[in-house]
Amino acid sequence: MTAFSIHPIGILQCNLQKLEETPKNYDGSEHSGTIEVYPQFLAGLEGIRRGDTIVVLFWLDRADRNVLRVHPRGDKSKPKRGVFSTRSPVRPNPIAVSELFVEDIHDNVLTVRGLDILDSTPVIDIKKKLYSGKIRNNSPAGEMPR
Amino acid sequence: MTAFSIHPIGILQCNLQKLEETPKNYDGSEHSGTIEVYPQFLAGLEGIRRGDTIVVLFWLDRADRNVLRVHPRGDKSKPKRGVFSTRSPVRPNPIAVSELFVEDIHDNVLTVRGLDILDSTPVIDIKKKLYSGKIRNNSPAGEMPR
Repeated sequence: MTAFSIHPIGILQCNLQKLEETPKNYDGSEHSGTIEVYPQFLAGLEGIRRGDTIVVLFWLDRADRNVLRVHPRGDKSKPKRGVFSTRSPVRPNPIAVSELFVEDIHDNVLTVRGLDILDSTPVIDIKKKLYSGKIRNNSPAGEMPR
Repeated sequence: MTAFSIHPIGILQCNLQKLEETPKNYDGSEHSGTIEVYPQFLAGLEGIRRGDTIVVLFWLDRADRNVLRVHPRGDKSKPKRGVFSTRSPVRPNPIAVSELFVEDIHDNVLTVRGLDILDSTPVIDIKKKLYSGKIRNNSPAGEMPR
């Protein structure tokens, strides 16, 4: 089968060293850290500002790629289900999608809040958050898209 | 630099053949199509049901990987900005993140609505949608997570 090749665009640094201490999801996490974007990709950051919420894709380099069924949220009291119906880090292509708040940005380094990702995890993409019409209407003014 | 290898887990079939006819985002798109998940990944789908909203990651195999600045939404009247501050398909690792409504599921084939992706695009991951606390409180009962 065809394979595609991914090159990291940067790397995460934070104080999350163990899976047991890592929040299950970005939602509600107050953990901060920094994303160092490699200098050759610096131009891609133009337009990202402090206070933005960005979508960050990580390559979970320590996740098992050969598991297709898991206990939801690691809770063994619940029956296993398919990884594609969960947000488990374990999956054939171990990519995480996080929404992170930009606390600061200087050159190629972003300080972000909301981490549910281990220290030293490669970053493979950053996107603008897409606000749907419905969500936008319910959001406080501070979260309006520009 | 280290590279990671991605293997498609499935493929999209839909009637979007040209970029000019393709919606800019999933939000508001009424285009339907089918995702055929390859048989060896079938167990990963267990738990996905008709009526769910799923997060689907696509590998945009026809996107330019060497561009770092673009006109937002292709609008040349607007100044260029960094691809990481947009949702342009053009980016170093051309991965799209779409939220799609599951109209139907039979074995390894999902019928999905909300497409902004070209026909024959490889699928690389499927996840449960994460509903934040705030959004959950504002959502109609039909959109509550299970």
